Amino acid sequence: MNLDLEILKALRAPDGGWVSGSDLSRALGVTRAAVWGRIEDLRSMGYEIEASPHQGYRLIATPDALHADDLMARLPGDRVIGRDIRVFKETASTNDMVEKLARDGAAEGAVVFAESQTRGRGRLGRSWSSPAGQGLWFSVLLRPAWRPQEITRLTVAAATALRRAIRSVTRIETEIKWPNDLLIQGRKVAGILTELSAETDRVRYVVLGVGIDVNQTASDFPGELSKVAGSLRLALGQRVDRPALATAVLRELDRDYARVCHGQFQAIAEEWESGCSTLGRTVQIRIGDRRLVGRAESLDPDGALLLRTQHGHLECITGGDLTLEKQ
Amino acid sequence: MNLDLEILKALRAPDGGWVSGSDLSRALGVTRAAVWGRIEDLRSMGYEIEASPHQGYRLIATPDALHADDLMARLPGDRVIGRDIRVFKETASTNDMVEKLARDGAAEGAVVFAESQTRGRGRLGRSWSSPAGQGLWFSVLLRPAWRPQEITRLTVAAATALRRAIRSVTRIETEIKWPNDLLIQGRKVAGILTELSAETDRVRYVVLGVGIDVNQTASDFPGELSKVAGSLRLALGQRVDRPALATAVLRELDRDYARVCHGQFQAIAEEWESGCSTLGRTVQIRIGDRRLVGRAESLDPDGALLLRTQHGHLECITGGDLTLEKQ
Repeated sequence: MNLDLEILKALRAPDGGWVSGSDLSRALGVTRAAVWGRIEDLRSMGYEIEASPHQGYRLIATPDALHADDLMARLPGDRVIGRDIRVFKETASTNDMVEKLARDGAAEGAVVFAESQTRGRGRLGRSWSSPAGQGLWFSVLLRPAWRPQEITRLTVAAATALRRAIRSVTRIETEIKWPNDLLIQGRKVAGILTELSAETDRVRYVVLGVGIDVNQTASDFPGELSKVAGSLRLALGQRVDRPALATAVLRELDRDYARVCHGQFQAIAEEWESGCSTLGRTVQIRIGDRRLVGRAESLDPDGALLLRTQHGHLECITGGDLTLEKQ
Repeated sequence: MNLDLEILKALRAPDGGWVSGSDLSRALGVTRAAVWGRIEDLRSMGYEIEASPHQGYRLIATPDALHADDLMARLPGDRVIGRDIRVFKETASTNDMVEKLARDGAAEGAVVFAESQTRGRGRLGRSWSSPAGQGLWFSVLLRPAWRPQEITRLTVAAATALRRAIRSVTRIETEIKWPNDLLIQGRKVAGILTELSAETDRVRYVVLGVGIDVNQTASDFPGELSKVAGSLRLALGQRVDRPALATAVLRELDRDYARVCHGQFQAIAEEWESGCSTLGRTVQIRIGDRRLVGRAESLDPDGALLLRTQHGHLECITGGDLTLEKQ
């Protein structure tokens, strides 16, 4: 048994109330001294836990740092995504770590967070800035029994899940920029990188990478980034509780993944379309050397963008660089 | 400079004739004694090389073992596939080795052969028997700038290339069983496993794995395999020169890969269709729990099978297990 996880679950259960030490020791099957030892350890990790000889323990405040046990304690027991969570202080790329887990046969739903990434990746091989403690950088392992071309649906589902999670924790409305960015007033605050390993006709695994700029200030964005990047803190005017946001995101991702797996992608696509600032606009898409201009009309059943070109044709676009044309 | 490679190239050039030792030493920029030393080493590896004080060296016979230098010496200089070749005595899976090369940034065209595999893989996670020295088990790294769904074209191109190579070396006509098997009189003699790593909208790399049963005898196929597997030797009644077949396959693969990259997939698809015993037949395809029965009609532009179902619909099939219905 993971004592920290069980103690944190118990402390959260009464919603600010007291948990008696003897109840805890009975429920966990360890001595009251052992419970006390774990409480002391949690305190040293930044958890403010009040202790009273008569009433027991009470959780007053939690640190902003990510702890795997704490994240798991906040999630529902029947989840797929987040059934196993690991948090690293620093790694090259959480997508690389989850790819390694996948190759070693890990079950779907494993999640790896890093407080910072030294070689974080964005789409098309671009780098992704991931400074320590400022955002959420994590990757999820999934093993859907799909064909490779159906994977675009995951990026769409992840965008709607992220959007709901951000709204629930901060009340901020973000807009979706196709295919995988969340913006606030035109500034990018989150991105999704979906990578897959497959045979020709079946997916072996998918690594869904998520990056959210949470608590950066303006001076945290160097050079060119300062013109296009934003953070939830900048939009909200105050710091955002990262562990609370992390668990909200995992909960919503788990929900939307289940919806896609149960044939409810259409509902997600409609939610996506209602939050998307790209649809209905004239856009330019660069795909390698090719450049397409047209009106972004809707999503197709697999999550690809349907573009009405200048010549009136409808093209099905699964990737590329999109810019909005001036109106 | 790779001396073995250059000496083998020179010995093959005059087509059975003599190459003078002094010409060799001049061309390679080393002493005649150094040339002699390399010739002795090649002899110890099984190359029969005649030496004459007046005429020089002459290649009489080559071993059946695979040597990277020898394979490269036989291939054209402007190739992509086989620009780098490695041969291992034994490995778990050549696809795994090439995947590792890919992650380490190797250029496309790298090829890894193994004389035997301990955990060779077939499609859908099945195992592939790869006994030492009996067949050709190898994998090719490719980095086409395609979308994931276009990768089926590689499997189609590889099947036509394998078929031509087998015909050129053995005069045997094989038939293609969709999607990736070559058969002789209903027995499987070769298979192709195409694995890819991709972002949603672009391929990062493809590992094309090839297995050819070359010199097995009937007693080499254990249990269930003995009912369905064959070898080129069993069909031909004599052993087949594996290095000659290996270079023929790489040459044809290189040619067909260039054709696909230059927009000539349609010609390959037609060649594939003419060699395919599946088209025009009533087939049953199992895809997971789903079971489809229909007439295999043709390939679509991306290399998927178009199946006319019992209900008259045309379905586009990218994978699954196919069996021919009794006629």
